[in-house]
Amino acid sequence: MKLKRNERIGALIKILSDHPNEIFTLSYFTDRFYAAKSTISEDIVVAKKLMEDLHLGKIETIAGAAGGVKYMPLISREDSKKFLEEISNKLSDPGRIIPGAFLYMADIIYNPSLVRKMGEIFATQFVEESIDYVVTVETKGIPLAMMTANALNVPLIILRRDSKVTEGSTVSINYVSGSTGKIQTMSVAKRAIKHGANVIIIDDFMKAGGTAKGMTDIIQEFEGHVKGIGVMIATREPKEKLVQDYVPLLILDKVDPICQQILIYPNEKLF
Amino acid sequence: MKLKRNERIGALIKILSDHPNEIFTLSYFTDRFYAAKSTISEDIVVAKKLMEDLHLGKIETIAGAAGGVKYMPLISREDSKKFLEEISNKLSDPGRIIPGAFLYMADIIYNPSLVRKMGEIFATQFVEESIDYVVTVETKGIPLAMMTANALNVPLIILRRDSKVTEGSTVSINYVSGSTGKIQTMSVAKRAIKHGANVIIIDDFMKAGGTAKGMTDIIQEFEGHVKGIGVMIATREPKEKLVQDYVPLLILDKVDPICQQILIYPNEKLF
Repeated sequence: MKLKRNERIGALIKILSDHPNEIFTLSYFTDRFYAAKSTISEDIVVAKKLMEDLHLGKIETIAGAAGGVKYMPLISREDSKKFLEEISNKLSDPGRIIPGAFLYMADIIYNPSLVRKMGEIFATQFVEESIDYVVTVETKGIPLAMMTANALNVPLIILRRDSKVTEGSTVSINYVSGSTGKIQTMSVAKRAIKHGANVIIIDDFMKAGGTAKGMTDIIQEFEGHVKGIGVMIATREPKEKLVQDYVPLLILDKVDPICQQILIYPNEKLF
Repeated sequence: MKLKRNERIGALIKILSDHPNEIFTLSYFTDRFYAAKSTISEDIVVAKKLMEDLHLGKIETIAGAAGGVKYMPLISREDSKKFLEEISNKLSDPGRIIPGAFLYMADIIYNPSLVRKMGEIFATQFVEESIDYVVTVETKGIPLAMMTANALNVPLIILRRDSKVTEGSTVSINYVSGSTGKIQTMSVAKRAIKHGANVIIIDDFMKAGGTAKGMTDIIQEFEGHVKGIGVMIATREPKEKLVQDYVPLLILDKVDPICQQILIYPNEKLF
C-alpha cells in the first residue's frame, strides 16, 4: 500500500516507538511503504525533529552497514523532575504508613503507566552502556524492571528467592540482608545468563543494599559486569550502603508513625 | 508550537499509543497543537484509517460529554496466529526439556517484546469487559500480566505466596494445587482491591487450574467479578480443569523426555 507523507510519518513513528531500541533498516520502510530511500530519509528527519520538539523521546539514525534508525524512549530532565515530584507527593500521604513504619506503595509500583515512565527514566540513565540484561529479584521490583527492560529492548532476568524445580539446574548464592542481618538465598537458572554479560540491576527499594549486593554477587558467578544499579526508592540512612554507584529515583528520608509524617523527595542528582 | 498536518498526525499517534485505552479530549490536542477542532478531527480520521490499514491497533472516537479519542493495541486474528505459531516453534525445541518433564521458558516469558504482544492479545480478548484490575500471582506470570494491564490501562494486582509485613493488613486464602494436591497460601493487601471490582486473571501456566481457582476465590473475598482468565499455556490434560472459561494462548499436548519431543500449538479458538 502506497502511503502519503503524513501517513508515512505516523506509521514510521508508531513502528519505531513500538520497538524501542531496535534498529530498523531504511529498506524495511521503503519496502513496507513503497517509497524511495530519499523519501524515507526525509520522513525520518521530520519525525526526529518532532519527537525532540515535543519531548516524546529520541529517534536516532545509525550510519554504516548495520545502520538504520531506532527510537529511544528517553525522558528529559524537566519531565523526569515533574514526574518524580508528583510521585513524591503521592507517596507523602500519611495514610500510606503501615505498622512497622513501612510505606504502602503497591498502587504505584504496580501501576503500568507510572512504572513505564520510571523504566524510561532508568533507560535514559543507562542507555549509553551496552546492556545485555536487566536483572531483578522477585517480587515487587519486577514490573519496574520489566518496563526498564522494555525501554532498553533487552531480556529481563528474575532471580528467585528459592530454586524452583521447573527452571533446571540453577546457580544459587546466600547473602546477608543488610537491614535485618538474616541470611537469604537467591538463585537463577544456569542457562538464563550468558557468560560475561553486561547487566543493570533494578529494584523497588534499597535500605542497606544487601539485596543489590547479593544480585551483584550472583552476576559475578557468571563473570558478568554490573553497569548500573537503579532503585525506585533508597532510604537516606544508612548513608553507607553495601553497594556503590546506585541511582535512586527518590530518597526516603523519614517515615514517622507517631507524627504521621513521610519525608520523601526526588533524587536531585538526576536533573 | 504550531505543527503541520504530517507532524500533528505523527504526534497524535505517538501520544495516543503511549497511553493505551486512555481517553484524550479533542481540546487536549487543539491546545497542544494550536489547531482548530475540525482540523484535529480530520487528523484523527487519517490516523484511524492508517492504524487499521497497517494492522497497528485501533483508534476509537467516543461521543458525548466524556468523549474524545483513544487508542487500543488490538491484534488481528491473522497477526495473533502468525505470532503464536512462532512462539510454538520456539517452545517445541527439545533442548527446553528439563528434568521432571518441565519446559524451560524463562527466555520467552521474560522477553519484553514477546510478552508485550501476548499481553495485547489478551487485551484484544477482554477489551469488551469493563475491567478494573489485572490479577496474577507471583512470580512467572508477572511480566505477562503487567503487559496485559498496560494494554488495558488498569492497575496490576500481584497476589503473594505468603503475607509480607510491608503491605499492611492482608486477606489470605488457602487453596489446593490441582496438580500436586498440596495446600498453598496466597494473600493480598486489604486495601489493594476495591469491593465489587471486575478483574481478569492472567498467569503463565495452567495444568489442573488450582491456582486460577485460588485467585478466583480470593477475588470473591472482595465481592469481585472474574470477567476472564487468560493463561499463556494450558496443558491439554486434564481436560476438566478446576475453572471454566479460561483462554489459553497455547495448548501443551505433550512433553516426552524419552523421545525428546514437545507437542505445543496455538489455541485455534482464538482465530
